Amino acid sequence: MPAKGNMLIGQSGGPTVVINQSLVGAILQAKQMKDIGAIYGTLHGMKGILEENFINLRKESRAELEKIANTPASALGSARKKPTDEECTRVFEILKKYNIRFFFYIGGNDSAESTHIINEKAKAFSYDLRCYHIPKTIDNDLRENDHTPGFGSAARFVACASMGDNLDSRALPGVKINVIMGRHAGFLTAATALARVYPDDGPHLVYLPERPFSMEKFAADVEAVYKKLGRCVVAVSEGIADENGVAIATKFSKEVDSHGNVQLSGTGALGDLLATEIKNRTTITRVRADTFGYLQRSFPGLASPVDAKEARTVGMLAVKAAVKGPEASGSIAIRRKPGTKYAVFFERVPLASVAKETRHMPDEFIAKSNNDVTEAFLRYARPLAGKLPVIGRFKAVKVARK
Amino acid sequence: MPAKGNMLIGQSGGPTVVINQSLVGAILQAKQMKDIGAIYGTLHGMKGILEENFINLRKESRAELEKIANTPASALGSARKKPTDEECTRVFEILKKYNIRFFFYIGGNDSAESTHIINEKAKAFSYDLRCYHIPKTIDNDLRENDHTPGFGSAARFVACASMGDNLDSRALPGVKINVIMGRHAGFLTAATALARVYPDDGPHLVYLPERPFSMEKFAADVEAVYKKLGRCVVAVSEGIADENGVAIATKFSKEVDSHGNVQLSGTGALGDLLATEIKNRTTITRVRADTFGYLQRSFPGLASPVDAKEARTVGMLAVKAAVKGPEASGSIAIRRKPGTKYAVFFERVPLASVAKETRHMPDEFIAKSNNDVTEAFLRYARPLAGKLPVIGRFKAVKVARK
Repeated sequence: MPAKGNMLIGQSGGPTVVINQSLVGAILQAKQMKDIGAIYGTLHGMKGILEENFINLRKESRAELEKIANTPASALGSARKKPTDEECTRVFEILKKYNIRFFFYIGGNDSAESTHIINEKAKAFSYDLRCYHIPKTIDNDLRENDHTPGFGSAARFVACASMGDNLDSRALPGVKINVIMGRHAGFLTAATALARVYPDDGPHLVYLPERPFSMEKFAADVEAVYKKLGRCVVAVSEGIADENGVAIATKFSKEVDSHGNVQLSGTGALGDLLATEIKNRTTITRVRADTFGYLQRSFPGLASPVDAKEARTVGMLAVKAAVKGPEASGSIAIRRKPGTKYAVFFERVPLASVAKETRHMPDEFIAKSNNDVTEAFLRYARPLAGKLPVIGRFKAVKVARK
Repeated sequence: MPAKGNMLIGQSGGPTVVINQSLVGAILQAKQMKDIGAIYGTLHGMKGILEENFINLRKESRAELEKIANTPASALGSARKKPTDEECTRVFEILKKYNIRFFFYIGGNDSAESTHIINEKAKAFSYDLRCYHIPKTIDNDLRENDHTPGFGSAARFVACASMGDNLDSRALPGVKINVIMGRHAGFLTAATALARVYPDDGPHLVYLPERPFSMEKFAADVEAVYKKLGRCVVAVSEGIADENGVAIATKFSKEVDSHGNVQLSGTGALGDLLATEIKNRTTITRVRADTFGYLQRSFPGLASPVDAKEARTVGMLAVKAAVKGPEASGSIAIRRKPGTKYAVFFERVPLASVAKETRHMPDEFIAKSNNDVTEAFLRYARPLAGKLPVIGRFKAVKVARK
């Protein structure tokens, strides 16, 4: 029997610049489905459900929805909240009360886990609920997916930022360390390598959480590049960890969310530590560090067109799948068609297969030196980030000394 | 007698995203002047002169020059170097040897000072030299100028970044502190206020180096905003100083350049200190800090069109003025035509009037509360930054509680 009733949609976890594309895609699709009655949005995800803090999304004009689709960061508000058992019981009282039969949650692996928990409870309570997760994460670490909505635009931002930073470093040489988001997966840090145009362009070194980080090796690597080029631009993931898997940044942070994640972003401490280590361990004097911070996931006007389009599509497809079935629950995964030209297709996958655990950079994307990416990664990431700014450089014909 | 001979041009100080527009403007103009022979570029400013490290700019194609014009950061390389008396003597041996009769230096107040020193020495040595400074600084702190090339594009970047950051803060509320470049002048920090679209948009507090900074007042301000809105986005200049004029950031930095400037950028220490103070002085738990860093002066593809055009113009006009006179030296200043619509004109001013000292935000641009800007500032800055991304927001019609 097809589900009929009201729909609730929410956003969760760290925002991206295209997460509202997915939201608007889902709303517009829902408006075309006669089985869907009211379209509710929960404010700040799980928190809004527990507080019955809903807005009526049918009241929004098409024009405003299109503006919102192009606006970064979760327009419904976000939360980092894993529902407890007790809260799940409460969630169902509320879903029942509002006759919500379609539930959509846009987020990463933690949000997929929350969706999965709710779906399992729905079965346990024999409550007829169509429950879909819509993928989103700049970390690009959702299993089952070739890549995730939000990553391409964040990759575009860090690639542009790294292009500019490399030029800045050419102008005023020294060592420059840039700290990039990414807790366990290095995809976004790796994307800084898209910035390279000329053979001596940075980032010259790329450190990923997938490989153990050694301060000695780091200092030696930097010194070697500096000796050769007179400067060195480094991209470091905020999640880099030592050989025992202990994140270097945990030395500074004690804040933990309800999913057990330690706070890594929103501080310059890791970059400053690394800069100090280079100053102490080498004779290089000009050492600077920047932490690209929340700009990576929120900078407006720079979305990758491919990313924006795919984010819209997964939102639409989740609503279609929920209404038309055949599966009552799932997540929409992006798969790449094998071959040279970039093309994707979308598939419904079970919630459990994207929930909780994350995926990492495959070995083929990481250079044997452990401090760079491979050509295979660049081929993978280039179409996701889209066309980058054109960079010029002087031929620089030397004037003969007199 | 009109000067005839070779030309040398250099770039100095912190790069901007339009400093190469000025360079290319000067080169293209010079190519049209029959009194100018060779067109040399010095690599890394004063350093390149002392090392006779010149490139032949006549060898560059028009197509590549146009690409370079749109490329951020000093394409000739930069330096932060004030020539000593001994070095000035050496500079003249070199200028003479290469028959350089036209000298152009693109930079801020420190670079204007270097240009001024060289010009004074030229007079002292009775060496016929046309000596022009071409303005550039994201700090917008050059005297005589309504605004400076580089500022508009940096303002555009920090306004966009602040738009995104405000949206991120709406999605995941808390206190967010953003540290913006600007040693003594708050113009760039003030430009974050261009990000506001809706009445409750951040930045909610703006701290400028023009007003004494008190940690007590800061914590109280943040708490008051947080109480009202449930969140607070703060823009802080890296140059904020206490009532004795001691920069808060100097507690962390001991690095000083040859102009006597302490290193403020390239570290997250100030942001982290302010975040810690808020955590210690209030009951707010989610407090984050980002330092926008070098991205502010180097991010490609985002130049303000007005800024790019004006940067090109000052480069061209400096060459014209140097060749045609009537003054043998000077700087090209940008003046705004009074009235409502944005229009500028350009004037040659003496080197001494822009060298060394900087200008500050006028009182009329700073709110009486000392923690915000005025409408007058926003009117001043808006045309410089150019059109910003369109931001959408839900009407958010509440669903009645059941």
